[in-house]
Amino acid sequence: MKAEIVAVGTELLLGDIVNGNAAWLGSELAEIGIDVDITTAVGDNIGRIAAAVGRACERADVVIVTGGLGPTQDDLTREALAELAGGSLVADPVVEAAIRGRYAASGRTDFPVNNLRMAQRPSVAAALPNPAGTAPGLRMPIGAAGTIVYALPGVPIEMREIFTGWIRPELIERAGPGLTLLSRRLHTVGVWESQISQALAGLDAELATAGNPTIAYLASEGQTRVRITAKAATADDARRMIGDVEVRVRAILGDVIYGVDDDTLESVVHRLLLGTQATVATAESVTGGLLGAALSSTPGASATYRGGAVVYATETKTAALGVPASLLAERGPVDPDVATAMADGARLRFAATYGLATTGVAGPTAPDGKPVGTVYIALVGPGGTVVRDLRLAGNRDRVRRVTVLTALDLLRRTLGRLPQL
Amino acid sequence: MKAEIVAVGTELLLGDIVNGNAAWLGSELAEIGIDVDITTAVGDNIGRIAAAVGRACERADVVIVTGGLGPTQDDLTREALAELAGGSLVADPVVEAAIRGRYAASGRTDFPVNNLRMAQRPSVAAALPNPAGTAPGLRMPIGAAGTIVYALPGVPIEMREIFTGWIRPELIERAGPGLTLLSRRLHTVGVWESQISQALAGLDAELATAGNPTIAYLASEGQTRVRITAKAATADDARRMIGDVEVRVRAILGDVIYGVDDDTLESVVHRLLLGTQATVATAESVTGGLLGAALSSTPGASATYRGGAVVYATETKTAALGVPASLLAERGPVDPDVATAMADGARLRFAATYGLATTGVAGPTAPDGKPVGTVYIALVGPGGTVVRDLRLAGNRDRVRRVTVLTALDLLRRTLGRLPQL
Repeated sequence: MKAEIVAVGTELLLGDIVNGNAAWLGSELAEIGIDVDITTAVGDNIGRIAAAVGRACERADVVIVTGGLGPTQDDLTREALAELAGGSLVADPVVEAAIRGRYAASGRTDFPVNNLRMAQRPSVAAALPNPAGTAPGLRMPIGAAGTIVYALPGVPIEMREIFTGWIRPELIERAGPGLTLLSRRLHTVGVWESQISQALAGLDAELATAGNPTIAYLASEGQTRVRITAKAATADDARRMIGDVEVRVRAILGDVIYGVDDDTLESVVHRLLLGTQATVATAESVTGGLLGAALSSTPGASATYRGGAVVYATETKTAALGVPASLLAERGPVDPDVATAMADGARLRFAATYGLATTGVAGPTAPDGKPVGTVYIALVGPGGTVVRDLRLAGNRDRVRRVTVLTALDLLRRTLGRLPQL
Repeated sequence: MKAEIVAVGTELLLGDIVNGNAAWLGSELAEIGIDVDITTAVGDNIGRIAAAVGRACERADVVIVTGGLGPTQDDLTREALAELAGGSLVADPVVEAAIRGRYAASGRTDFPVNNLRMAQRPSVAAALPNPAGTAPGLRMPIGAAGTIVYALPGVPIEMREIFTGWIRPELIERAGPGLTLLSRRLHTVGVWESQISQALAGLDAELATAGNPTIAYLASEGQTRVRITAKAATADDARRMIGDVEVRVRAILGDVIYGVDDDTLESVVHRLLLGTQATVATAESVTGGLLGAALSSTPGASATYRGGAVVYATETKTAALGVPASLLAERGPVDPDVATAMADGARLRFAATYGLATTGVAGPTAPDGKPVGTVYIALVGPGGTVVRDLRLAGNRDRVRRVTVLTALDLLRRTLGRLPQL
């Protein structure tokens, strides 16, 4: 069974809001094994809504429309669907009574007549009750092939409740005892997306022949996610298929995989620190506090993160962390030994198991004579000192964020007794 | 001129990520007066990408494709565009040299040959340099009407940089003399979107009658943007129309407006500090480094931001900042006097004009007996001490981010000699 999603609203096209409804519906449909090939967003215009839904009906078995069901003059989904079905709009007396009752229950008496727009429906449509709001959902067949079109309000909570309460069970029943689609995401850090895909090229090609399960890649700054997706008759079968591929992916990629699904690098480091009853303190120059912000982002972080110093101005490295002034005078602030002295100072002054320090040049200018993108990260702990020396590409924000990821990964590898990159 | 956006990526259809690129591009295109009627999202499949882009080319003058330009086997936008243009893929030697150079500069030698996929382009396409990453953008004509198709990487920072550097100026030039559409964004902090829209309701209604200029609102965490948009025969006329409305908006909203267009609260605070030759140091508990990260985010921040202490564990407040242990024992860490002592300590130990401190409960649990969302911010400077006492709603991330905004605004108001909220 194929589905398409048509999201209605000029605010989506103008970028005033992101299309979170389409993402949510896509995820829900995937879970019950329904493929979505295309999602469309279209503005508040009867002709364009009708055209977009009409095209979707030619391609899909089910079309889910979100938005344009409210009470205002620019809510036009009802009109567009009536035009497409070749019928007229009729007032639904049951819905009208519900709307008037809901309004009366709120204690107000000045009933806005605009609200009655929400009681209108194409004559061929059935209304689906809205437990979270006023405008009902709609269900109607459209086109020669009898494609089922569902229309839902754009307010996320209302859209979700009507989908979960009415549409999801209908779709599962209609799909019959068919296929379940499940995914698992493996998160990697420290290698390029191209290295990951090249390492997995053989496995990927082998899987592509059968087409199930599949592997996909998603890169964001410094991290690549590998998604394994499987379709099977039951969820247990899908999980088993995913597990078989995961074992092979892990055998190839090894320890660049730091977590799965909802894990973040911060949450994994927090768990590793908890597991070894260790704590960390930070000494930040180039990252200006971002590393501390990451280490304190996980709930319960106070058990593992002690705090640290942001030593942005050069002389504060001496005052706050005891970095020798002579070392700074001789080498400047962007130097591996300065990074080590910073990490040492943070570990000592914040009484932590580990001290983790960053110093570097984020740009756009390079006042200290080192090129933009030069970064040193030092980790000092019971097992000794590790220093990493990076040459990062990209703008100021990217240099700072990739430095944080690399520092967290340095700590992860040390705590997990993994070799450093 | 009409544009369409086609976002490529199965992860969009599965709901693994929301289509933020389409929202950003829609907003940018609206600002330069280009209408977007339809946005489409399509999976990683050559035939479906080609079909979606082909349909868009029939309707629009410009089509912007995002995603599918990376190095992996499921990055298929290049192939789809070549198929659509009826040509083949060719290797671009300039791009190839740039990719190899970028890799070499990172100090690694095991060049993944997959990376060369990013040097391929349809023979009719030109490559647009990517200042933030590896894969270049593409520009090519498609179809009988010569619709211009731009393809951009899906990584948001790369997509934005290529659009801003290359595509935006080309589109403005191509739109040529005609009606010029200009916008100006006024940024506010510290008040609700509904307060802003209610305060401006009269002006908004008056403007809505003529329909030009217009006002729109866009709220994000703790900040609301008021966008004034005018269409006119010349840019000067549009600017004058915007200016007239801006004067009236400023008369109504006053000093909650902190900046315009590309200003950020951080950059405004940095400028105010520079202008008064003052510096600031931070003392962070609940924000864990986010405030330092904000104050160090603007290029040249080392002239105004000294650094500070992240005192996450309670006892580090005494060790690193000299907060009296007796005060902490008596009141706990979430207390207005503790915040003041932290700010005092940071100002003294980091030799700054101002000390700015945050302490509070970000949640999800409330170990210190104060409810989640309780936050104290203290600013100590030559003019004395100001403390703000907040009760913030929302989750851990939101509490931390709104605390940073409020702290920056406290400093902005003090430096600008404005009354505190």
